[in-house]
Amino acid sequence: MEYKNVIAIDAMGGDNAPAEIIKGAIEAINERADIKLRLFGDKDKIETELNKYTYNKEQIGITHTTEEISCNEAPAMAIKKKKDSSLVVAIKSVKSGECDAIVSAGSSGAILVGGQVLIGKGKGVKRAPLAPLTPTAKGVSLLIDCGANVDARPEHLLQFAQMGSIYMEDVVGVKNPRVAIVNIGAEEAKGNALVKETYPLLKACKNINFIGSIEARDIPKGEADVIVTEAFVGNVILKLEEGLASTLIHIIKEGMMSTTRSKIGGLLVKPALKDTLKTFDATEYGGAPLLGLKGLVVKIHGSAKAKETKTAIFQCVTFKEQRINEKIVAHLAEEMAQAKEEKAGEQ
Amino acid sequence: MEYKNVIAIDAMGGDNAPAEIIKGAIEAINERADIKLRLFGDKDKIETELNKYTYNKEQIGITHTTEEISCNEAPAMAIKKKKDSSLVVAIKSVKSGECDAIVSAGSSGAILVGGQVLIGKGKGVKRAPLAPLTPTAKGVSLLIDCGANVDARPEHLLQFAQMGSIYMEDVVGVKNPRVAIVNIGAEEAKGNALVKETYPLLKACKNINFIGSIEARDIPKGEADVIVTEAFVGNVILKLEEGLASTLIHIIKEGMMSTTRSKIGGLLVKPALKDTLKTFDATEYGGAPLLGLKGLVVKIHGSAKAKETKTAIFQCVTFKEQRINEKIVAHLAEEMAQAKEEKAGEQ
Repeated sequence: MEYKNVIAIDAMGGDNAPAEIIKGAIEAINERADIKLRLFGDKDKIETELNKYTYNKEQIGITHTTEEISCNEAPAMAIKKKKDSSLVVAIKSVKSGECDAIVSAGSSGAILVGGQVLIGKGKGVKRAPLAPLTPTAKGVSLLIDCGANVDARPEHLLQFAQMGSIYMEDVVGVKNPRVAIVNIGAEEAKGNALVKETYPLLKACKNINFIGSIEARDIPKGEADVIVTEAFVGNVILKLEEGLASTLIHIIKEGMMSTTRSKIGGLLVKPALKDTLKTFDATEYGGAPLLGLKGLVVKIHGSAKAKETKTAIFQCVTFKEQRINEKIVAHLAEEMAQAKEEKAGEQ
Repeated sequence: MEYKNVIAIDAMGGDNAPAEIIKGAIEAINERADIKLRLFGDKDKIETELNKYTYNKEQIGITHTTEEISCNEAPAMAIKKKKDSSLVVAIKSVKSGECDAIVSAGSSGAILVGGQVLIGKGKGVKRAPLAPLTPTAKGVSLLIDCGANVDARPEHLLQFAQMGSIYMEDVVGVKNPRVAIVNIGAEEAKGNALVKETYPLLKACKNINFIGSIEARDIPKGEADVIVTEAFVGNVILKLEEGLASTLIHIIKEGMMSTTRSKIGGLLVKPALKDTLKTFDATEYGGAPLLGLKGLVVKIHGSAKAKETKTAIFQCVTFKEQRINEKIVAHLAEEMAQAKEEKAGEQ
């Protein structure tokens, strides 16, 4: 049988690989009959895990690989040298068209380099940003860029805003997403050189709903849908959110265990609190796509478990159905044509 | 009577001025007999507030001013034009030596500009950073710089690390404080151009305890005492911490109100939780000093209430007793002499 969606899974990447990754894969195919998964990694290990489950065998394929890339290796070198690693072979299956997308919980650096080098950027794309969804009080926002593209230029940020808008509208389903740039004050005159140069470009861009600057304190409140920033700041925001949320939840739990009274109270609030905190759990929202490539690469947390793996697989399907990369390239081409026309008009 | 510590208070700055600022001032002098406060602002309004309290009248002085600087004004222009504003007159009282320090909850920009322009930087100080204490799971860390010094250079960050170490050791009492630079990975090779250039300078600096890079997720855990970063990123960290903590606490409270069971539990855990969350409340730790000036300027939150005002006043006293600014200038002079010597040795 031909499957509409074929997703490559790096079965060896991540802290909980292969067990949790394969568990998530099985959960995904048991929920949807239109997905086929190809697992890349050590065949014996993969089969040991697969044997634990009941599933439609047609929906799983295995490609045996002999190497693994660890998080401590220099990414560019690892991608170049470890040609038979689960990650490299899986990424190449997207390049060749065998698979539609790849999900990996492996080394972030290697995923970023691998995606850009082995698959390549779409026409007109200057840089491929990593764009995770982050939980807010109102739902989710797209934080773009959180990758390794440090020292970005204004024209990169402009493209990130455009790519992010397309993603939020077509994958997440937010109508006319509000785009904001991270700044240290609300006024246009504030900010560092990069923000000051980028601001007018975003303001002039007709195809996005630019609402101006956003201060970091308003990000968790959900005041914008697409949060544009260069990767260093994006990375700081993403990791601080994760670190602070887990630290706060930890000290709240400790606080609840501090007296007999609070222990009893803690037991009573637990179920309600669990639901609430779930909405603020980054792992609920799947993975972070590397946008603008000629194929889809989705990075999930190194600590990803079955749930996140499954969500990321479904995300890939929506991404493919919505033809996001094609839309991005078309959008950028249109933008360039417009810019050329305007330039010609000026002369 | 001569007072050892004379602190200027901008009675008109901040969302809760003058009521809460003056309440905090009274609480401070009622706790310590060795402090005199000079309140700058509208005399009538100040006296109306003062009349609510019982206190030693000798410990309070008033300087009447007729103008106020709002948060919406361009800082440099406001400082230049509003010569009779509470903030400008109060800052000048530090410059003249009448007061030892100033505390203000007014416009951040105006405080930063006013401090640097009207008081001036200490000898050898390249930039004056704003350095707030931020709560962590283990206590507090100093986040330096969070001011308006965007687009910093490596030599600025090096000085921030040195100033921050002196502050944490002598004001906060942390022995041999651990200094780390904010980065997007733990390895020396990671980061943007600024971090890559700053890293070796920090590593080579003999007078600080440099422990390397810190990822944002480890900041709330308290993995370093002095967190060095340029002001844009520092500002993002500071505001994101405040925004996320308040958003999380809000949704946790909502979660507790969602069922009858959780409501009862919420009542039982409330006292214990209040104590716990207090340790994570930034307002508990007073204000943020502008380090390296020829006088002490302390900025407190625009939303500061009496408690934060009082804590900031006590912070000023410790700062003065420990002769922090003198130590900073001496430290930088020593550093410069060493560098010269080494250069001479090389030739």
